[in-house]
Amino acid sequence: MTLTIWTYDWVPPPPRGHVRDIRLRWACEEAGLPYRIATVRFEDRTGPDHLARQPFAQVPALQDGDIQLFESGACLLHLAKRSESLMPGDAKGRAETLEWVIAGLNSVEMVSVPWWFIGLSSPPENPLEGWLTSRLARLDAVLATRDYLAANRFTVADLLMADILRVPKLRAALIDYPAIQAYLTRILDRPAFRKSLQDQLDHFATADAARAKG
Amino acid sequence: MTLTIWTYDWVPPPPRGHVRDIRLRWACEEAGLPYRIATVRFEDRTGPDHLARQPFAQVPALQDGDIQLFESGACLLHLAKRSESLMPGDAKGRAETLEWVIAGLNSVEMVSVPWWFIGLSSPPENPLEGWLTSRLARLDAVLATRDYLAANRFTVADLLMADILRVPKLRAALIDYPAIQAYLTRILDRPAFRKSLQDQLDHFATADAARAKG
Repeated sequence: MTLTIWTYDWVPPPPRGHVRDIRLRWACEEAGLPYRIATVRFEDRTGPDHLARQPFAQVPALQDGDIQLFESGACLLHLAKRSESLMPGDAKGRAETLEWVIAGLNSVEMVSVPWWFIGLSSPPENPLEGWLTSRLARLDAVLATRDYLAANRFTVADLLMADILRVPKLRAALIDYPAIQAYLTRILDRPAFRKSLQDQLDHFATADAARAKG
Repeated sequence: MTLTIWTYDWVPPPPRGHVRDIRLRWACEEAGLPYRIATVRFEDRTGPDHLARQPFAQVPALQDGDIQLFESGACLLHLAKRSESLMPGDAKGRAETLEWVIAGLNSVEMVSVPWWFIGLSSPPENPLEGWLTSRLARLDAVLATRDYLAANRFTVADLLMADILRVPKLRAALIDYPAIQAYLTRILDRPAFRKSLQDQLDHFATADAARAKG
């Protein structure tokens, strides 16, 4: 059964390459799972049809037969059950993958996204700076001891963590964390990531062309 | 096999009742899963033994036989697989529970915890205020249509969301969101929550007494 990944038809240039459908594209590419892209008009994202699919008016959402899911983290864990290339089959490996997916979402991104958001208005001091650097220091200590977060191999936890860390402003802040930098370079060098990134950029470029034509 | 929930031996008064081991206590109480509490000295939380268990120096962690897990969200999803009182057995119900657990962690708490943290220093304006209220408005719209987040019944997603929302400062901000308020009252009225809260308060009160004795 072909999976359907929902994203916007178009977004303004700044978030292109970072819209979170890329996490699902990347997972499907890693696992060789066939998928198609479906879109909601950016201007209709707070309309009832999209809110029924994603109650916070965000993307992505995933359709897998009669299962519909929102939240990129939930979609990744769902996809991971379909392929051992995303998550090991043994209980210990699954537990490690799960804890590091949640650590990405709730220990790193819970600080890095609000830090990034506050930084958009260029305040003289970012009140989340100290908290962010303490989290990055802990993560750096972990990655100084191993190449992957979970189960001694690439998993969907690395895919998620790398996508969290590659946000340009955050990536610039990683200069003090050599183990994270080496890790990020290693994970982003995967062909499945590079294809997903290009596919997302192409998707929005095509939308520009269509909108220009009217 | 008895589960082990790791928490601190003692914490200063302000976070008592909100240390995240309560999420795991509550889940075990709901499911009737036997568990014991193990502790790390609060002063030793950044030591190597605890960092091996929880690389961000936080609690809780969970031991289930030879499986060890950190991150309360990961521990909840792990426990949920052990009891249908926490998560339905069918694929659709599991997907709904999963997406709402992740929504709690990454769409609500990703805003509410940094908002709370910034509020501790009482700035004239909280830069996350607008983002928080937009998330609460979306959640209120969902809860105006149903009693539980997932699968038309209580799940671990409600347990998590209620624990996120009951933080005192956030709870005070819920006055504009009647559906969330009614939901929170309903979920927190569960005997398993009330027992877990009392158990955590007793745990730290006992630690006070032991420390006073020296």
